[in-house]
Amino acid sequence: MRLSELGEFGLIKRIRAKCKNVSPEIIEGIGDDAAIIKTGAKKILVTTDMMIEGTHFDLSFTTFSQLGHKFLAVNISDIFAMGGSPEYFFISLGIPQKCKTEDIDELYSGILKLAKKSGVTIAGGDTCSSKDGLVLSGTLIGTADRIITRSGAKAGDGIFITDTVGDSAMGLILLKSQKSEVRSQKLKNKKLKFGTQNSKLIKKHLMPEPFPMKNMSKVTSMIDISDGLLIDLSHICDESKVGALIYTDKIPVSKELAEAAGTLRLNPVSLALKGGEDYALLFTAPQDIKTDAFKIGEIVKRGRFIVDEKGRKRRFQAEGYEHFKRK
Amino acid sequence: MRLSELGEFGLIKRIRAKCKNVSPEIIEGIGDDAAIIKTGAKKILVTTDMMIEGTHFDLSFTTFSQLGHKFLAVNISDIFAMGGSPEYFFISLGIPQKCKTEDIDELYSGILKLAKKSGVTIAGGDTCSSKDGLVLSGTLIGTADRIITRSGAKAGDGIFITDTVGDSAMGLILLKSQKSEVRSQKLKNKKLKFGTQNSKLIKKHLMPEPFPMKNMSKVTSMIDISDGLLIDLSHICDESKVGALIYTDKIPVSKELAEAAGTLRLNPVSLALKGGEDYALLFTAPQDIKTDAFKIGEIVKRGRFIVDEKGRKRRFQAEGYEHFKRK
Repeated sequence: MRLSELGEFGLIKRIRAKCKNVSPEIIEGIGDDAAIIKTGAKKILVTTDMMIEGTHFDLSFTTFSQLGHKFLAVNISDIFAMGGSPEYFFISLGIPQKCKTEDIDELYSGILKLAKKSGVTIAGGDTCSSKDGLVLSGTLIGTADRIITRSGAKAGDGIFITDTVGDSAMGLILLKSQKSEVRSQKLKNKKLKFGTQNSKLIKKHLMPEPFPMKNMSKVTSMIDISDGLLIDLSHICDESKVGALIYTDKIPVSKELAEAAGTLRLNPVSLALKGGEDYALLFTAPQDIKTDAFKIGEIVKRGRFIVDEKGRKRRFQAEGYEHFKRK
Repeated sequence: MRLSELGEFGLIKRIRAKCKNVSPEIIEGIGDDAAIIKTGAKKILVTTDMMIEGTHFDLSFTTFSQLGHKFLAVNISDIFAMGGSPEYFFISLGIPQKCKTEDIDELYSGILKLAKKSGVTIAGGDTCSSKDGLVLSGTLIGTADRIITRSGAKAGDGIFITDTVGDSAMGLILLKSQKSEVRSQKLKNKKLKFGTQNSKLIKKHLMPEPFPMKNMSKVTSMIDISDGLLIDLSHICDESKVGALIYTDKIPVSKELAEAAGTLRLNPVSLALKGGEDYALLFTAPQDIKTDAFKIGEIVKRGRFIVDEKGRKRRFQAEGYEHFKRK
């Protein structure tokens, strides 16, 4: 069978079925943002993320320092999504011949700057040569007293999001159009101009800044937006065995995204729903919770619906980025 | 600076200097087989290993099941080398388009068979698409009561090795010659014949079987043979700030290696000293220790020497496999 028929999530399901959890110390294994290991009194969270040149990043878009930042940021986001604190980071690098020592230094400078800011210690890893592109694989270990999984959402809960979404996807579109413009030499002798607003979107794509929830005591389930709001909300619905209702006019869209989407005649809400890599936190909690987060809908018993600004209701699928699937 | 000037170990040194350990809970960070984290009463070991197609494996030599076995085996070996028990394995895969679902199933069957045998639980990971070759990145978490690092060797200790060395390197030579013979079509219509002895060497390369030390109470330092005996012994000397003296006629060489090397006019002792990926354990301990392991030399205050069968002494360098270095 081709992997393109199965898709990333089909593959994960298949792997999960094979690797049935047999250890009583593993509270959660495959299928959440991080695995949970209970050892003594403390709970330990472990997350791994792989970034491959040509799949996850393009070295003509990003500096090595920005890449290092993002590499740690996506791992931190997974630990935050479980309600934990990031602690120890392990870095495995597959380095192609084209990379210079200075490039690796720059990569580490980006990692270390964010590590310092986030209280993360670089504790180990592996370095080897890669025949083709650059490969980064990180394992971040965190700790938590109370852990929030994807499986606790209950009908009646509100659905909340901590930040605007779709900015990163628009940032990537801008970077790609910038590259094709450079390629077509339209701007060969001009310095590329990007307004401050576009820079903000691009920065959101290249250097996402995950931040933790402040008060999680009432939160019932949580995930970070990595593949896209609809996919990630579907993960919560799958694991919690519930449905969801979201309102398009409640989805927080930044001024910058609205403007750039207007110029490029794209639908900003569609980008907000399907664009990935925002690393905002999507969570469910009782509707009367005190929070700065945006309430975008409610958990229902069954069915997954989007309600548009005219009150029209349509079912949604888990649309967003999925590895292996044909577009 | 080119990475080929710095080499893998130069790069690790550079990274280690950048990532100074600031956390009191990290007992050992970068630079040993695994990192050690103390949490509550238990010590937790973490090791990561990356395997990249074209660098670490050739899919025309190995089946996916053998590859899965080796992928977990090299990680288990790192945990054994610290005196620990392997517990939880996290698997990140970068999968190219050419791989079918059945290939990934086979890969997991190899991992799971060894996991079951070794008491390891598959606890999570990441799957994504790779533009070029297959990439495997594993993180294995182990536990230990007493941990054995590379830094405890003392002048006067014996140097021991748990198994024959050089077999894996010879296995790889046989696989490569097999491939070039197939390529040159000399054997196009013949079924390739490999004697039982050669099969043993090839199996040692494709499916290494790490095993733990039984009684480690007197062991002062330990490492697994992954890069080659001389390199790995040099790591112990570096970390313990001691010298070493080893005797070529004490190095355990298998009958199979001796015969294959004879046929190919290669020096079996040179393969035993410089060939990597044997995953035997190299350790130091008081000379009167009761052990089944082979004693190959002694730790001395300073200097690193090989004594040949005629009693001639020459200095040795850390020769073996090092990523990035030009050959």
